[in-house]
Amino acid sequence: MSQVHIGPITGGSLTSVPGFKAAGVACGLKPAGALDLALISTAQPCVAAAVFTTNAFKAAPVLYDQALLAHPEARISSVIINSGCANACTGEEGLQDTRATAQAVAQALGIKADQVAVMSTGVIGMRLPMAKIFTGIEKASQTLSSSTEAGHAAARAIMTTDTHPKEFAVRVQAGSWQCTIAGMAKGAGMIHPNMATMLCVLATDAALTPQVANQALREAVEESFHRITVDGDTSTNDTVLLMANGLSESKAITSLKSPEYGYFLQGLKRVATELAKAIVRDGEGATHFVEITVQGARTPAEAKQVGMSVARSPLVKTAIYGEDANWGRIICAVGYSGVPIEPEKVRLWLGDLELVRGGKPYHIDEERASQLLSQRDISIIIDLGMGQASTTVWTCDLSHEYVNINAHYRT
Amino acid sequence: MSQVHIGPITGGSLTSVPGFKAAGVACGLKPAGALDLALISTAQPCVAAAVFTTNAFKAAPVLYDQALLAHPEARISSVIINSGCANACTGEEGLQDTRATAQAVAQALGIKADQVAVMSTGVIGMRLPMAKIFTGIEKASQTLSSSTEAGHAAARAIMTTDTHPKEFAVRVQAGSWQCTIAGMAKGAGMIHPNMATMLCVLATDAALTPQVANQALREAVEESFHRITVDGDTSTNDTVLLMANGLSESKAITSLKSPEYGYFLQGLKRVATELAKAIVRDGEGATHFVEITVQGARTPAEAKQVGMSVARSPLVKTAIYGEDANWGRIICAVGYSGVPIEPEKVRLWLGDLELVRGGKPYHIDEERASQLLSQRDISIIIDLGMGQASTTVWTCDLSHEYVNINAHYRT
Repeated sequence: MSQVHIGPITGGSLTSVPGFKAAGVACGLKPAGALDLALISTAQPCVAAAVFTTNAFKAAPVLYDQALLAHPEARISSVIINSGCANACTGEEGLQDTRATAQAVAQALGIKADQVAVMSTGVIGMRLPMAKIFTGIEKASQTLSSSTEAGHAAARAIMTTDTHPKEFAVRVQAGSWQCTIAGMAKGAGMIHPNMATMLCVLATDAALTPQVANQALREAVEESFHRITVDGDTSTNDTVLLMANGLSESKAITSLKSPEYGYFLQGLKRVATELAKAIVRDGEGATHFVEITVQGARTPAEAKQVGMSVARSPLVKTAIYGEDANWGRIICAVGYSGVPIEPEKVRLWLGDLELVRGGKPYHIDEERASQLLSQRDISIIIDLGMGQASTTVWTCDLSHEYVNINAHYRT
Repeated sequence: MSQVHIGPITGGSLTSVPGFKAAGVACGLKPAGALDLALISTAQPCVAAAVFTTNAFKAAPVLYDQALLAHPEARISSVIINSGCANACTGEEGLQDTRATAQAVAQALGIKADQVAVMSTGVIGMRLPMAKIFTGIEKASQTLSSSTEAGHAAARAIMTTDTHPKEFAVRVQAGSWQCTIAGMAKGAGMIHPNMATMLCVLATDAALTPQVANQALREAVEESFHRITVDGDTSTNDTVLLMANGLSESKAITSLKSPEYGYFLQGLKRVATELAKAIVRDGEGATHFVEITVQGARTPAEAKQVGMSVARSPLVKTAIYGEDANWGRIICAVGYSGVPIEPEKVRLWLGDLELVRGGKPYHIDEERASQLLSQRDISIIIDLGMGQASTTVWTCDLSHEYVNINAHYRT
């Protein structure tokens, strides 16, 4: 097994992956001519895999894509994404709108409708304004380009309350084996694992089998998008889609046990994790980015459960917003996580400052704590003292601005 | 079985129950001479029952009371409650402080230490300042009184971020059978079932067996304190204690099947529900009180699960703060509750205004919705269309003031 090198591509986008073209256009779903329709396309029918929201109210495009990808021979070559309207809670009419969207893309690009995936994000319960969508598809298909700028425009077109686009691309090299992996995502609010108002498209030129694509995506999502929370709400529209066009001349990955699977997975995890962290960093109203590492757990699942319990606590999140070293709230959230813990074994660090040892306050240096909490990035380490398992999750603080954004989102 | 009449006692307090005395004094735990130590006492050793926090980090007084009440012959005649310091995460020293507190009360009142329950609420991880506690106990034991004012002072002394004391008292009458039931509670933040930074003392003159007291308390808590949420955090200190001094001359309740058990339970539920609702109404920063009724569920447990999912959604709570009829967020929270639902059967009302039918928007009257949302009290009804079970839960909105309060609680 060769040493693998994951090299980030500065300023990269989905179009950094050979064969992938993109477009981001304005079709009038958002006010003031903002970009609101993204099209991603490659000439090669791609092996694809996806992870969808667990919400029982699944938006029309989620139901549509689920059915599409359930087919064992599914090959996707394009994905069309609109912001501004979620096409959720829109019944049979909403499904018809999604179908018509896919058909319009297929027609514009001269491909089959079952090669087109559809995603939507925005307000729930509103029908898609189809005339605008059709005009937008026309425009997008004409401006498809492999330029980095086109990739950036697509990333911008899928934003809702995001303050900036989220993109990441890497080149994976291990000996003579290589591939490119890139992704774009949108997030902001309603971010919680399984998953969130979160859309993500991942693209690669690696040649994968459907089984490999599926397994790699599941593993990568588990360590990235399923370990972040902004506010604990899981949306109706979440989708992470992986498309592999196979253009790379390196050896195809056909086995989960091959060294190449390991190389690819490492690259995919890196892209997914960077995008997941970017979503949290840009969480609605966030003023702090918080990394929570739980170690000394009996199992990785218990480590994650404790971490997510802390990550979603409104009291922890408001304390961090207030830059208050209120470790008691962190300990409290550890305590109600549902994981059986032994309080007298628990240790807690803020950065390198040990605040709790043996379940009790330990040499609290308030001045140093305040200094650590004044940083934008905050690290919390919790040691349960019960085993060897560990995991890391990410969250942001809960600010006045979060309330501002969400009190009047529709209006 | 007679008709039962539950008559609220206007301006009532714990001292409305025959035999119960109370005191609320200032001992210097809170700044500016605010009341911070409450003592409740009755000459009769009481049959007692309690429900405690499920948090793994249990505060010292919780561990102490749990051990005390685990004894089958436990009889409590006094409870001492301090605010300002939670005595949580204080290790063996914290337990010693709780023991010393109980002993000091016993000495001052000439009773045995195992007749004294202890509760604490406030900041986590700080030792109790015992000199102040001892002085306070001395003062409280000297001012114990059966006056209503004394009851009110006790209710005020247990407040933390509460803006006003919470008390409720009823007289229960069924034919010639009667009793009095009263309670006081504190809440405000960290309120979530199983339970919250929530302390509650319930007192009655009914004569109960320990089994009857236990069962009645569990049933009443399930329909009251376990159906409210402010922010989803479950504290280290929550305790609901029921004391029955048996002074009533009406027939003792010795069987769960007796008509008297039904009368008593109805009264206890009323007191517990009024206190639970008062806690939500006074939730930190709350500007709206929200009653969520879920009907058409297959089981009461599923109805509760759906209701609590909506009740704790930050997106629903901020929308209500913004008085925005964002029914999509309510539907979304129904969808991720974990209860298997059929979206096309779901109906949703805001007050008497039907917003969703068949899982889709139904005749949305934005003007009327805005008017309903401008009221302080808001009613949401969700019909799952799957069965006959229903339940009601209560929550409040998430406001700027919630963030203000919690960003700087310690400082």
